[in-house]
Amino acid sequence: MFPYKTSIYLDKSVKEPLYLQLSNQLILLIREGQLTSGTKLIGSRQLAELLGIHRKTVVASYEELALQGWVESIPKKGTFVHNNLPNLYQKRKERESVVKEKSGFSFYTSSILKAKKAFKVEEIIYLNDGTSDTRLTPLDEIARTYRRVASKKSTYKHLDYGSTYGNNGLREILVSYLNSTRGLKVAKENLLITRGSQMGMWLSAQLLLKEKDVIVVGTTNYASADITFKNTKATLKRVGVDQCGIQTNEIELLCKTTQIKAVYVTSHHHHPTTVTLSAERRMHLLQLSKKHGFAIIEDDYDYDFNYNHAPILPLASHDTSGNVIYVGSVCKTVAPVFRIGYLIASKDFVDEAAKLRGYIDRQGDALLELTFAEFIKSGDLDRHIRKVLRVYQQRRDLFCKLLKEELGDYFSFEIPKGGMAIWTQLNKKYTWKQVQEEARKHNLEVGDYTRYDMAKTNHNSMRIGFASYTENEIYELINRLKTTMKSITKKL
Amino acid sequence: MFPYKTSIYLDKSVKEPLYLQLSNQLILLIREGQLTSGTKLIGSRQLAELLGIHRKTVVASYEELALQGWVESIPKKGTFVHNNLPNLYQKRKERESVVKEKSGFSFYTSSILKAKKAFKVEEIIYLNDGTSDTRLTPLDEIARTYRRVASKKSTYKHLDYGSTYGNNGLREILVSYLNSTRGLKVAKENLLITRGSQMGMWLSAQLLLKEKDVIVVGTTNYASADITFKNTKATLKRVGVDQCGIQTNEIELLCKTTQIKAVYVTSHHHHPTTVTLSAERRMHLLQLSKKHGFAIIEDDYDYDFNYNHAPILPLASHDTSGNVIYVGSVCKTVAPVFRIGYLIASKDFVDEAAKLRGYIDRQGDALLELTFAEFIKSGDLDRHIRKVLRVYQQRRDLFCKLLKEELGDYFSFEIPKGGMAIWTQLNKKYTWKQVQEEARKHNLEVGDYTRYDMAKTNHNSMRIGFASYTENEIYELINRLKTTMKSITKKL
Repeated sequence: MFPYKTSIYLDKSVKEPLYLQLSNQLILLIREGQLTSGTKLIGSRQLAELLGIHRKTVVASYEELALQGWVESIPKKGTFVHNNLPNLYQKRKERESVVKEKSGFSFYTSSILKAKKAFKVEEIIYLNDGTSDTRLTPLDEIARTYRRVASKKSTYKHLDYGSTYGNNGLREILVSYLNSTRGLKVAKENLLITRGSQMGMWLSAQLLLKEKDVIVVGTTNYASADITFKNTKATLKRVGVDQCGIQTNEIELLCKTTQIKAVYVTSHHHHPTTVTLSAERRMHLLQLSKKHGFAIIEDDYDYDFNYNHAPILPLASHDTSGNVIYVGSVCKTVAPVFRIGYLIASKDFVDEAAKLRGYIDRQGDALLELTFAEFIKSGDLDRHIRKVLRVYQQRRDLFCKLLKEELGDYFSFEIPKGGMAIWTQLNKKYTWKQVQEEARKHNLEVGDYTRYDMAKTNHNSMRIGFASYTENEIYELINRLKTTMKSITKKL
Repeated sequence: MFPYKTSIYLDKSVKEPLYLQLSNQLILLIREGQLTSGTKLIGSRQLAELLGIHRKTVVASYEELALQGWVESIPKKGTFVHNNLPNLYQKRKERESVVKEKSGFSFYTSSILKAKKAFKVEEIIYLNDGTSDTRLTPLDEIARTYRRVASKKSTYKHLDYGSTYGNNGLREILVSYLNSTRGLKVAKENLLITRGSQMGMWLSAQLLLKEKDVIVVGTTNYASADITFKNTKATLKRVGVDQCGIQTNEIELLCKTTQIKAVYVTSHHHHPTTVTLSAERRMHLLQLSKKHGFAIIEDDYDYDFNYNHAPILPLASHDTSGNVIYVGSVCKTVAPVFRIGYLIASKDFVDEAAKLRGYIDRQGDALLELTFAEFIKSGDLDRHIRKVLRVYQQRRDLFCKLLKEELGDYFSFEIPKGGMAIWTQLNKKYTWKQVQEEARKHNLEVGDYTRYDMAKTNHNSMRIGFASYTENEIYELINRLKTTMKSITKKL
């Protein structure tokens, strides 16, 4: 007889009912070929005795197996493993969960970079790309609003499948907020709520670019944008970036020989160099896009953070011919965890983007969208921006002062007029690789500096965020960086 | 002199500071070519008088324009519109927001279907595809948990950019929950948290399919899946579906002539026909996938809803060779608004999917993910499932009873063993188009019946959800449907 007693292990301490444990283990035995097609199962009374359980449990289990089609009950004869099961002998695996490593099929891998692993030691200071200080997030207000929104009777209708464009209430409030703060003049129909700027870029890339299409980006450019565009198999053409931003004359020259599908700009503060696109070039770029019929993807990722003057209105506010696709988000302004962004463009493009997003993730989170509608309407967002703007300006001033005074021999930079990061050029005597390696000995993690030079121009610069550190942390960071540079210099 | 007074309108009642209103309107006048390059602006004292505002406001405004590069201040000479601005004469548009209709560039449109517009009248009863009753959502518990999670000190670290795989805590809890409820034996590394099943399908399609690749689906199939796959330009091959589910013999035949990249199955309850894939075919399909190296995309969209017996373990629980990609979500179980799903596969595939999702929407919502980790851990999810299961079973029984008794002449169907919908065949004397048109007169909206027959086999069936209606609503729905059918019959 088949060794039921030693092959089956039932655990009364777990939630799963015994009869299900039993039937699932019998299925395992069948599919592993230990109980083969046609085998007569042991009688229920006998199995109950063997396993020390109630007979009814075994009967329920056999019924379950029959319902699932694994066994057949023949009256007065007994229960038999179904005859039509193909044999699929497999070595019995251990019952513990194990990582399945390899797929049994082939799939396409991409040029997409894998996120780098973060170091785990608490005391390490990590340099970053210019992220906000999440400790300043008005989390309590947001969570309270979330719960208040959830407690409204009228909220139930938002729990079902909803619009792929995003919640209508938020669309209306965002449009009026963006029209008033960014000088736009668009309607709700021109706005799609996304999961942050990245989704806006992704959707735009999918709709604009295919193999052989050309998109123009800066020589230095936001690495995620580069990768998002490359992933469509489009061709990236790079043009120079100077103190006035991306060089539109080069784009004009390019237009003479090449059909351009789109230009990607971070006009407010160029990523990564932080320079602002000049008024002259803005107008020039708009003119070119109109003349040659290309799209401008304007990624306005840190519009809210300006220290020397009011924010400069985006290209989108000057676009009368439907050439600008404007993407932005609250992720930098409030906290990255709140994946709420927007794509603003002509209605024909927004409609197509909304269709596509419906097949990517169906829709956004209407509860969170309603929460942010309240958060904007109440003025909480404005208050938050005013508050962190002051804090970040102080941090910028301190960071730049210390970087100049303490590390002026090693690094050169311009004080950024806005944003949350400094574009820092390392003295050509050194390499960032040296800095990274030495810094690790002093609990300072430089991060992936290579992503600032995807075009490999050897500019020897990287972007260093200042906004996420308190004043004490800034002193400590500069200190560690100084120790690092001194150590390297000694070894030279 | 330029008519400043009549060209500029300042509104003291709005939030935007006066100096900004002024500078933004001057920018508008410049870019519209009304103030051309080289023009000397009127003196600040004079403009202040004209507009009835303080001179300091005008000065601040001119400084703003200079900082933004629109004008140049020449000491003792005055303020001049910058010389290098390209002329971009445009007709002045109205200041109100207007819908921008047309893009100034070309982009790719897709075969993706646009979501149908819903009717607006409250009293209409809408048939649906088998959605849950959002009125049963434990929204208050979830919102309370959300706020509790947000109030924890340790939560701050989750507000920053996080893992593209999803929150680690939820991954661990989901893996153990799915291992115990679905007989899986996978590790955290095999699970990617997605925004619902749709994102799992989208990611799988992107990684598996390119032009000319072949994916197999049922003759009748979930329309969103069809469209998601078609959008990759892959070729869909259809095989029959009968009472035992998708016909694996046809797949075996197909394998002899064609290299198959993937097979899409809704094994638990086939969408749309609700039949369960038999044990025999399950083993056969697994065997084929192993032999021919194709992927099985198993969409287990309504695992939790079984009325006649315990849920049948998914194909993924029998997969030892890494051929199954298992996608599911809590969207049907809790509410569609909570976009939390999972993709389970071998680590190599999950890693690639996580990279890709990083460029689609960067990451999930860690706060919501932490909330659901609590919701599962506390047993609230289980309690919720037990509760709605009882309710839905009663609704199924009533719906089927009435459909048979009252409308047996018009519709035939099998009582579904699980899920939230009935596969309903209309008597061939009638068409769904007739039913749709007549039903509208009786405040009953049938919806898009064509999506159940993407392959155009004229089966004359559609899927009708029962779970979202209370007993009273079911009576009313059947009533309206009966009136509809009688009206049509009279006219025949």
